[in-house]
Amino acid sequence: MKFSEIKKKHQNNILNIKQTVEASYSVHFIKGLFKKNNHNENPLLMLCKGNKLIIVVDENVYKKFGREIEQFFSMNGCNFILHKLNASEKNKTISSVIRLCDMAKKNRIQRNSIFIAIGGGITLDIVGFAASIFRRRTPYIKIPTTIVGIIDAGVGVKVGINFGKSKNFLGGYYPPLAVFNDQSFLKTLTAKEIRCGLYELIKIALIKDPSLYYLIERYYRDLMENDFNKRTEEMIFLAASLLIKELTVDLLESNLQRLVDFGHTFSPCLEMKSENEIPHGEAVGIDILISSHIAFKKNLLSQADFDSIFSLIKSIGFSKKYSLPKAKQLYSSLDDIRCHRAGSLNLVLPNRIGAGNFTNYCSVEEIKHAMDFICDSEMFQRN
Amino acid sequence: MKFSEIKKKHQNNILNIKQTVEASYSVHFIKGLFKKNNHNENPLLMLCKGNKLIIVVDENVYKKFGREIEQFFSMNGCNFILHKLNASEKNKTISSVIRLCDMAKKNRIQRNSIFIAIGGGITLDIVGFAASIFRRRTPYIKIPTTIVGIIDAGVGVKVGINFGKSKNFLGGYYPPLAVFNDQSFLKTLTAKEIRCGLYELIKIALIKDPSLYYLIERYYRDLMENDFNKRTEEMIFLAASLLIKELTVDLLESNLQRLVDFGHTFSPCLEMKSENEIPHGEAVGIDILISSHIAFKKNLLSQADFDSIFSLIKSIGFSKKYSLPKAKQLYSSLDDIRCHRAGSLNLVLPNRIGAGNFTNYCSVEEIKHAMDFICDSEMFQRN
Repeated sequence: MKFSEIKKKHQNNILNIKQTVEASYSVHFIKGLFKKNNHNENPLLMLCKGNKLIIVVDENVYKKFGREIEQFFSMNGCNFILHKLNASEKNKTISSVIRLCDMAKKNRIQRNSIFIAIGGGITLDIVGFAASIFRRRTPYIKIPTTIVGIIDAGVGVKVGINFGKSKNFLGGYYPPLAVFNDQSFLKTLTAKEIRCGLYELIKIALIKDPSLYYLIERYYRDLMENDFNKRTEEMIFLAASLLIKELTVDLLESNLQRLVDFGHTFSPCLEMKSENEIPHGEAVGIDILISSHIAFKKNLLSQADFDSIFSLIKSIGFSKKYSLPKAKQLYSSLDDIRCHRAGSLNLVLPNRIGAGNFTNYCSVEEIKHAMDFICDSEMFQRN
Repeated sequence: MKFSEIKKKHQNNILNIKQTVEASYSVHFIKGLFKKNNHNENPLLMLCKGNKLIIVVDENVYKKFGREIEQFFSMNGCNFILHKLNASEKNKTISSVIRLCDMAKKNRIQRNSIFIAIGGGITLDIVGFAASIFRRRTPYIKIPTTIVGIIDAGVGVKVGINFGKSKNFLGGYYPPLAVFNDQSFLKTLTAKEIRCGLYELIKIALIKDPSLYYLIERYYRDLMENDFNKRTEEMIFLAASLLIKELTVDLLESNLQRLVDFGHTFSPCLEMKSENEIPHGEAVGIDILISSHIAFKKNLLSQADFDSIFSLIKSIGFSKKYSLPKAKQLYSSLDDIRCHRAGSLNLVLPNRIGAGNFTNYCSVEEIKHAMDFICDSEMFQRN
């Protein structure tokens, strides 16, 4: 952190405070992070050394990797406590955050201790929020275990929880100490989790990079068959770096017109109305379909590009024949989006594969046409 | 806000994120902020124009100034809702913050709306914390109505609430949009509130500025008689600018060795053990007595300086003959302080009037001697 100056204007009775804060962190891609042959010069260990650790692991991740994780920290002489988190959208609440803070306080976690979050996006968001308010800020490290975690929640600085029926309504912007991405975690992902990851990959590809889009088109089956190889590594690394590039233009979101909000305008309503039966990533997939159809009908997106997007998403498919909300409900939900984006809709629409743009105009008819079209595809139930 | 660069080191599989965030705000000293003759070119109005406002007023302040405040915002055509807050240490909890967020959400407060906090330190801390997490951050303006508010909570960026029995345990660092200080609010302060203000004035004077100390020594009676004049204005302005100068060296407290923590090492325990009967400012006064006695006995502070401090504090006095905790309890509470200061005690002791220094050594005997001495003064009850 660098700092500050004060200019005193005694004559006006105004004191001006100006500060510059520099924050930096690294996103590491390491295979077999907790494997024995990775113990030497492991950058995670170098960060942890000498600090008390509070490791919070998604309980499902714990079932598969708990022993390995505990052994890693024990064998390397770390002073740690480990807590299993029931990470679900339903539990992504202020109560979970407060329970975590309470547990940390009872275990005498200090201001220079380190929270380590190991899990998917929900785990990273809850633990990050707790760390951001615990003793006004306590360092934290993110170790995402899902594709969504690696390419979305993992790279950025957003932390937060749901509030009432609103997703991620309370939270903050809190840079982690570091992020460690390890593809080894991905091999136990379910088909549903892989799909969610694919839709976030498609999101960033569609607005930023045609070459990533064509990679996904060619190799998405590798991911769906849990075949993690050089190509899937490349896709995930590329998506994460594109997102970082996009986020770091304005990490604290002073500008609320953000390309990365593509796929995230209708999705909160889709998730909420399904009472979180539709997981975040799949809701993003449906949103991409709706937004692309609107773009196509507005003559912003070519027929060929729309067909390509539609066909790719249809091939990836959804975990269930979800029942979707009515066009009118989706339309009404845009009011909440406007509130969150300081009054403007800023709906992101694809112009072509690899580039997006904003519109503030979206009618209930446009949404209805899109919904009719995607429901005719037999992917979803009509409502 | 300025921004960022990404250095990609593909060869190492590390993405480095580096960002510089610039935040700035002004602390205005304005007399009669809400008075009719101040409506033109009022900088508060200029900031508010066009934004929805959520004005949160301490309910005691509302009793005295509510009508004037409401008239000000109505007559100037502001779109606002006003909420009265029962601001007490007991209510400085996460529940109060969540209730406030809930109310703001129901009233469709947007990301570009503005929270305006009008009250003492507790009000500023609660509202600031709510604003810092509402929609991940919503602008807020601070209008302190007490001396402590103006020279302490008002100038800085700390927000927070109590947690369990720990004061200000959860919170954050969130710069306001602006701060407006208006001495007109001070004229209705109680003797207790004035005393609290005086002890915060003495705190900053003792560690930073002998000239402020001598001003206080000479003119503290003006404050105690609610006679707000040029001299009291000068003292308050000076204290606020000293604090700003000290805070802006390290606004986010990366370094936890802070001179401004003088008077704030034993005070949390004093407040807590009295179940908040001892208000914050008076607890700071008692802490200054204890710390100064320890400094004197360590031969760090001269007899003359100690006598001066002791005699000034005795003249100001306390609102009640409080019963103080035992030396052993105060000693035990230092463990919590160490946790909060990343492992080190960093007890601030005055070297002389106007300069302080740190120590990590403080024995139970030293505290006991100090407690014996100050209880012999008949200011407090022995315990």
